[in-house]
Amino acid sequence: MRLYQKAKRLGTWDPAAIDFTRDRELWRGLNADEQGAILQITSLFQAGEEGVTLDLLPLIMVIAEEGRLEEELFLTTFLFEEGKHVEFFRRFLDDVCAADGDLHGFHTPSYRVIFYEELPAAMSRLRDDRSPEAQIRAAVTYNMIVEGVLAETGYQSYFLALERNELMPGLREGLAHVKRDESRHIAYGVHLLSRLVDGDPALWRIAEARMSELLPHALTFIEETFAGYGPTSPFGVRLDELSEFAQGQFAKRLDRIRRGAAYEEVAL
Amino acid sequence: MRLYQKAKRLGTWDPAAIDFTRDRELWRGLNADEQGAILQITSLFQAGEEGVTLDLLPLIMVIAEEGRLEEELFLTTFLFEEGKHVEFFRRFLDDVCAADGDLHGFHTPSYRVIFYEELPAAMSRLRDDRSPEAQIRAAVTYNMIVEGVLAETGYQSYFLALERNELMPGLREGLAHVKRDESRHIAYGVHLLSRLVDGDPALWRIAEARMSELLPHALTFIEETFAGYGPTSPFGVRLDELSEFAQGQFAKRLDRIRRGAAYEEVAL
Repeated sequence: MRLYQKAKRLGTWDPAAIDFTRDRELWRGLNADEQGAILQITSLFQAGEEGVTLDLLPLIMVIAEEGRLEEELFLTTFLFEEGKHVEFFRRFLDDVCAADGDLHGFHTPSYRVIFYEELPAAMSRLRDDRSPEAQIRAAVTYNMIVEGVLAETGYQSYFLALERNELMPGLREGLAHVKRDESRHIAYGVHLLSRLVDGDPALWRIAEARMSELLPHALTFIEETFAGYGPTSPFGVRLDELSEFAQGQFAKRLDRIRRGAAYEEVAL
Repeated sequence: MRLYQKAKRLGTWDPAAIDFTRDRELWRGLNADEQGAILQITSLFQAGEEGVTLDLLPLIMVIAEEGRLEEELFLTTFLFEEGKHVEFFRRFLDDVCAADGDLHGFHTPSYRVIFYEELPAAMSRLRDDRSPEAQIRAAVTYNMIVEGVLAETGYQSYFLALERNELMPGLREGLAHVKRDESRHIAYGVHLLSRLVDGDPALWRIAEARMSELLPHALTFIEETFAGYGPTSPFGVRLDELSEFAQGQFAKRLDRIRRGAAYEEVAL
């Protein structure tokens, strides 16, 4: 409920109100490689946010039908925010990059595995299977890996590229909101996992196994985004620093799950 | 998309921020019948809003899976707002009425037909049947009857009882927000119906038939809410003025559908 109240207070930012004037000027000053790098990551975020907006629905349905009103209320803000993220990245692509062509070329093989296969499969399984196991696999995939590892690494990549070079103030402003929204979503994922395994610590093993299952795809995906550049992006972001960041995020999320497990074991 | 932008601007009110201090004072000054009448309508709204929040999900899923991104974005605000309505009525029941008991006794037979049977059936049918017919039956039930006739009549009932007697300023403040949110939802319903029958005017007949099917339940429900009082409520609201209002709303919605049909027929 605290997350819900916080979401209502902080979640009122409007993607349509962000000023991209300076971003457009700066965009025109970038070379083709630099434009390509921004277009790449933004189109990956745009498609990813579209995916997570759609894929969240079966989870809301499960929670609502279980009669968990407070969680359901929070999830209405969660969905609304994912919708705003879609709008935000779309606006940047339209108004700054004037990218009206097909951007699916940026979707690398591992991106497709995660966003076209693993995520929709784990989420839509909830339509017919509401078991704790299915919910745990869904929450790990959605909140821990996609939001907790991939999106966080994406913000870091944006940050390293844009902050260092003082580029795209409108984009950075919106990203700060997106990142703050996502931190509440991840916190909800942790809450959900903790609630699900309450009384059955064996379920943590499923969470851990699911984490390990997805890690290789996540790391390969990060490598694939560097395929066009070698080990350093046009903005001087290095593949190794980004992979390290992703592994750090993964360790953080896994540790959170393990501490949960330890806590549960002590509690029983 | 205009509705979506409007929702983001207007939909930022927070039920938790409404001040019920004066409402609590006034509540203590009411007699048992008056308290009962407010408790009755508020508990019907509270349960109704819970129902519509849950029942909206299959429609969002259909729209999202059809790839209608703009409508999907609007529907994320729609769901978020329904969640806030649940919170608003719940807060009033808790903080003003201190109603912690079971309020299901207020759910009359016709209320149960509409909110326990017709609405969930029409909406959850969308999980397996995405045909235009199923979508039309869902939109008529949800947007035209529940929101367009029943909720509107409920606001009128509140208005006649509270405005006349200068009661419950906090409740009235929240209701003004709820009513404004709902008007966008009804507008979306009209848009959805119009889009669905585009090119197939025969579908209007299904909409009309569905309207007529639900009218008797709606009118009986309004009568049932007066069962405890005779023809006039403790606040001087008359059954006949409310039934007339409901029939007027019904005629308005049906006319909108018929004009749609006429427009389509001319256009073809």
